[in-house]
Amino acid sequence: MFESAEIGHSIDKETYDAEVPALREALLEAQFELKQQARFPVIVLINGIEGAGKGETVKLLNEWMDPRLIEVRTFDQQTDEELARPPAWRYWRALPAKGRMGVFFGNWYSQMLQGRVHGHFKDAVLDQAISGAERLEQMLCDEGALIFKFWFHLSKKQMKARLKALKDDPVHRWRISPLDWQQSETYDRFVRFGERVIRRTSREYAPWHIIEGFDPHYRSLAVGKLLLEGLQNALKAKTLKEPTPIAPLGASIDDRSLLESLDLSVHLDKNDYQEQLLTEQARLAGLLRDKRMKHHSLVAVFEGNDAAGKGGAIRRVAAALDPRQYNIVPIAAPTEEERAHPYLWRFWRHLPAFGKFTIFDRSWYGRVLVERVEGFCSQADWMRAYGEINDFEEQISNAGVVVVKFWLAIDQQTQLERFQERENIPFKRFKITEEDWRNRDKWDLYAQAVGDMVDRTSTEIAAWTLVEANDKRWARVKVLRTINEALEAAFRKHKK
Amino acid sequence: MFESAEIGHSIDKETYDAEVPALREALLEAQFELKQQARFPVIVLINGIEGAGKGETVKLLNEWMDPRLIEVRTFDQQTDEELARPPAWRYWRALPAKGRMGVFFGNWYSQMLQGRVHGHFKDAVLDQAISGAERLEQMLCDEGALIFKFWFHLSKKQMKARLKALKDDPVHRWRISPLDWQQSETYDRFVRFGERVIRRTSREYAPWHIIEGFDPHYRSLAVGKLLLEGLQNALKAKTLKEPTPIAPLGASIDDRSLLESLDLSVHLDKNDYQEQLLTEQARLAGLLRDKRMKHHSLVAVFEGNDAAGKGGAIRRVAAALDPRQYNIVPIAAPTEEERAHPYLWRFWRHLPAFGKFTIFDRSWYGRVLVERVEGFCSQADWMRAYGEINDFEEQISNAGVVVVKFWLAIDQQTQLERFQERENIPFKRFKITEEDWRNRDKWDLYAQAVGDMVDRTSTEIAAWTLVEANDKRWARVKVLRTINEALEAAFRKHKK
Repeated sequence: MFESAEIGHSIDKETYDAEVPALREALLEAQFELKQQARFPVIVLINGIEGAGKGETVKLLNEWMDPRLIEVRTFDQQTDEELARPPAWRYWRALPAKGRMGVFFGNWYSQMLQGRVHGHFKDAVLDQAISGAERLEQMLCDEGALIFKFWFHLSKKQMKARLKALKDDPVHRWRISPLDWQQSETYDRFVRFGERVIRRTSREYAPWHIIEGFDPHYRSLAVGKLLLEGLQNALKAKTLKEPTPIAPLGASIDDRSLLESLDLSVHLDKNDYQEQLLTEQARLAGLLRDKRMKHHSLVAVFEGNDAAGKGGAIRRVAAALDPRQYNIVPIAAPTEEERAHPYLWRFWRHLPAFGKFTIFDRSWYGRVLVERVEGFCSQADWMRAYGEINDFEEQISNAGVVVVKFWLAIDQQTQLERFQERENIPFKRFKITEEDWRNRDKWDLYAQAVGDMVDRTSTEIAAWTLVEANDKRWARVKVLRTINEALEAAFRKHKK
Repeated sequence: MFESAEIGHSIDKETYDAEVPALREALLEAQFELKQQARFPVIVLINGIEGAGKGETVKLLNEWMDPRLIEVRTFDQQTDEELARPPAWRYWRALPAKGRMGVFFGNWYSQMLQGRVHGHFKDAVLDQAISGAERLEQMLCDEGALIFKFWFHLSKKQMKARLKALKDDPVHRWRISPLDWQQSETYDRFVRFGERVIRRTSREYAPWHIIEGFDPHYRSLAVGKLLLEGLQNALKAKTLKEPTPIAPLGASIDDRSLLESLDLSVHLDKNDYQEQLLTEQARLAGLLRDKRMKHHSLVAVFEGNDAAGKGGAIRRVAAALDPRQYNIVPIAAPTEEERAHPYLWRFWRHLPAFGKFTIFDRSWYGRVLVERVEGFCSQADWMRAYGEINDFEEQISNAGVVVVKFWLAIDQQTQLERFQERENIPFKRFKITEEDWRNRDKWDLYAQAVGDMVDRTSTEIAAWTLVEANDKRWARVKVLRTINEALEAAFRKHKK
């Protein structure tokens, strides 16, 4: 895998000096076009052997190109705000917006390689990390990102020669870093595991480029040209991906559906309600004060038919708690900054720190519900969203986030009555809009979308709870009880 | 000052139960209107005696109102990301957007009071903090924010009675917090310094409301009604403030101006340039590696005539450094989220952590330059910006940020030549737009604005450096040298 990068590639100074000016101009042009189109972000991952010119090359790119459009990010020590959230949070918060370029040093690959090289874990865990990286990059590319992955290489001989030369040079000796010495010990392991990572994660949409790093002219020109070609290609393409024909999901063939199989006649009388509500609220308050919450956070997702009582249920949950413990995030149309990032970015940015609780009033499921039904995104987009969402929930769940998801279901008659009531009560009138009436006409389409959503995203990790919500009391108690049970289950599994 | 809040205010249950429903409806209506108008944010500061119902009241407000539009923030322990930036950064990042309500527990007042009560500093420092709070609130209100400041009060007798009652109650004993015990020791000092703070910071645009906290019915109704009235008033007002007639700044009466007094003929020949540039770049690289940078960060602001060579100067600065050390923030039109916050928010969010360097390519001075000249903001807005900017720079400078500001000046003939050159060179053509030509027609207006800007914001803390930029070489070296001198001066002053 590294053979071609150990043959002593080099470019003489004359050739280099002759080629650079045109390359620079072309890169500047491409960068400007990137900014003008603002259609996709560029992510450049920098990995490889210490001393192979990673830092120098990034510095040079900043000189050649317009550094105002480049964001260089390092990921060393995690800050305490990062430690309190799932591992990928730090990468999500650093993603460049459309039209800009982000250079990631010390990215997900460095983390997994360091861990494996130093024996913090075995191959199985490395492979998990590799799959995680693949899913992340696949998603980023599906969202339009252009990814370059560079591995700067030195053969063992080149590495040793470089270290020796530096050591003997009193002026440049200081440039040998602790990482250099470390790598001279671990070179073989680093290259072996590096190969495993590269082999598994080189994909047509985000291939690795292995660059022999010994000769600065060679590596600079090689990287510059790869960047230029990739950029020009992507800028020329009308859309970033050819739409592939997708088979429809298929409707129910016996006219039975999950939602219709719910028994919406269940209800609670007022006394039972009062008693159970208070019990469950007290239980939730206690659970959130439990010291095991230090290693967990809680995310509750509320989806449901219009007028199904999401707001009321959320208020009963909130009422149990100190307002300093929770945060409610209402999801409406995305802001300009949110639209300039991958779909899930706006949810990642609101993930709670450990010990905290975030309630999403509507959520990332918008893509497979309203966006699907109203045609706000392509079929390919919402079809791949199922997998992306499962992956997202698995990631955050693995990091200790307890995920609870509710679909509040009512029947059409109940919805009609509530709409009419809302129109007649002054302080409720703002809860009903033209759009609500329009959505009602698409009842069956939404029912189909909900069925598919539950079939595809109700998982052991983050199950959907269908809530019979014709009776608000029943619904509110069920919501609270479900949250409590999920927290208790998480605490039981917790073995620290 | 607290007399009225120690007389045993109370509301009986019947009155309370009778009044609450209408109050709730009205609050919900107002909140909805707030969201619809999305014209200003609401900031609620919660302070006062422990046990006087601060937490309970906020909880109740979240029950009465729509908690999805309320963000409750606490400011306890600073995170390490906060510790690496000026103290106010944590408040800026938590500011609610227009149309939303932010409830701040443990805000700037709690910090200053705790510090003074526990003797971490004396009155002089308290008074500095008070002035800082005043300036912050004045700015927020000028930007449209509606601020409520509540002080929940208990007389010493009431506080002791409450503690005794709780202590004797086996069921509720756990509700006594360490803060309660602490306060029973420090009550007198806390109230004394509290009075000083309230007295100085109660202003017509952000008055304090002192609420006797012993009776829950009284305090809840009192707070609810104050909020409602304040909200309704602000929602009714067409604009939040009456525009007051403002005297113009006055133009030069002898036709001499600061910019014209610059000697634009200064220049460097190629050899001197090469030598001096390399020297200054090496010096900057060394300074940023200095261990004293741990307690400092560096902010460089680049403003100047169009085509004065800002980009080129920035690149020469960047070229000295490892791209991981700096960040370049190009300032163009604000995003939607930025427009929903006070003017300076978009700059606060990009402040570097200690050890880092942020280059602003155009900056917060946009308000007194392009926004003033083009009429994008009112005269009152840009007039007050001078003071706000001085305050901002003083705050960040006090926290260890080294601020360097450049105006790159060229004459009209040089600008014309550069415009023409840009139009003729393919990879430079994107640097010139119709707008640049239009701005040129306003040369004198901009010159006047620059003169006023320098006169009003060139301070001992953050001086303007006027850079003669007809000769690019001269300009680049002067920029680098000025940054280096500023860093060295900061290091010399540093006494840790």
